[in-house]
Amino acid sequence: MNTPSSLEALIEALRCLPGVGPKSAQRMAYHLLQRDKPGALRLAHSLGSAVENLRHCAKCNSFSEEEVCVLCSSGKRDDSLLCVVEMPADLLMMEQTQCYRGMYFVLMGRLSPLDGVVARDLPLDRLIRRAQEQSCEVILATNFTVEGEATAHYLATLLRAQGIKVSRIARGLPVGGELEHVDSGTLAQAVLERREVRE
Amino acid sequence: MNTPSSLEALIEALRCLPGVGPKSAQRMAYHLLQRDKPGALRLAHSLGSAVENLRHCAKCNSFSEEEVCVLCSSGKRDDSLLCVVEMPADLLMMEQTQCYRGMYFVLMGRLSPLDGVVARDLPLDRLIRRAQEQSCEVILATNFTVEGEATAHYLATLLRAQGIKVSRIARGLPVGGELEHVDSGTLAQAVLERREVRE
Ligand SMILES: [Zn+2]
Ligand SMILES: [Zn+2]
Repeated sequence: MNTPSSLEALIEALRCLPGVGPKSAQRMAYHLLQRDKPGALRLAHSLGSAVENLRHCAKCNSFSEEEVCVLCSSGKRDDSLLCVVEMPADLLMMEQTQCYRGMYFVLMGRLSPLDGVVARDLPLDRLIRRAQEQSCEVILATNFTVEGEATAHYLATLLRAQGIKVSRIARGLPVGGELEHVDSGTLAQAVLERREVRE
Repeated sequence: MNTPSSLEALIEALRCLPGVGPKSAQRMAYHLLQRDKPGALRLAHSLGSAVENLRHCAKCNSFSEEEVCVLCSSGKRDDSLLCVVEMPADLLMMEQTQCYRGMYFVLMGRLSPLDGVVARDLPLDRLIRRAQEQSCEVILATNFTVEGEATAHYLATLLRAQGIKVSRIARGLPVGGELEHVDSGTLAQAVLERREVRE
């Protein structure tokens, strides 16, 4: 075929992006080469720099450029509360409510057997250790989707078996709703109305 | 906010991809950093390499790693025919029909006033020069979309004014159809049934 190898390689490489099939990858490659070479170079550089510089915070497990992230090392947070969220974007949403001043633990995922994500794929040992060190209340703020709920249920059982107090943010969110897409007020209310997980 | 700067930079840089908004960019960044760092590095490298190595073929205007691409420099093609297509993917489709052995000219776009693409944004001077040098028949194989048809009409007028013989591939394609999505047989038929553009 008449496709230069570096173009073929680029189209193939773009397919590592989630939701990008062969046709979109081709369209993206043409667009970058034809209309936005500076953008392509900026993207190349950002990818390299992000892979090189980002790690998981030793405390909250979110992405961080330092061993311990800015939030975890601030010293101004209430360490009697540990809020568990699925993704870094959920942590940002919590912060935007400005009603929560505790610590976080980011699962970087959720239990999702259909996608092959089971308990051992999540950093649950680290979560338990962190909750025990801090001897705090754990607030489960996973999404109110089927997977998020299953994850919350699983975590509640696991943490309570260790004698850790566990609560779940209130179902102020619509069923099937995701933290990322809810307004700050609703989310703030859900945090205030959290209830202890007992059974 | 609690987003490390290299993560923010990556999310921002991903938005140079067509059709990628802030939420998709975030999802892509998380996915790469969490699940596919090798893919991210491969993409970074491919972007750099494609931008560095690819240029437009001096003859057909398609992407090429050489001054003149493999197809244009093959010496085995019929240079009494010059087929004009919108994009490199369309050239590949034409080649797959195995019924066309002439040369190509790739517009790298189409007239599309609504997207701000007007005649001077397409390499029409080069197309005319090329058609005159080769003193050939120009076969217009732009898509049968509104933009593709308008482009064909514009090119026909322009080229015929220079005394160049112009034909249009037959409307064997469904109205609104794109070359990329048609089967080889239909496209081959459309080439065979091309008709000269007279008025
Ligand atoms: Zn942290
Ligand atoms: Zn060429």
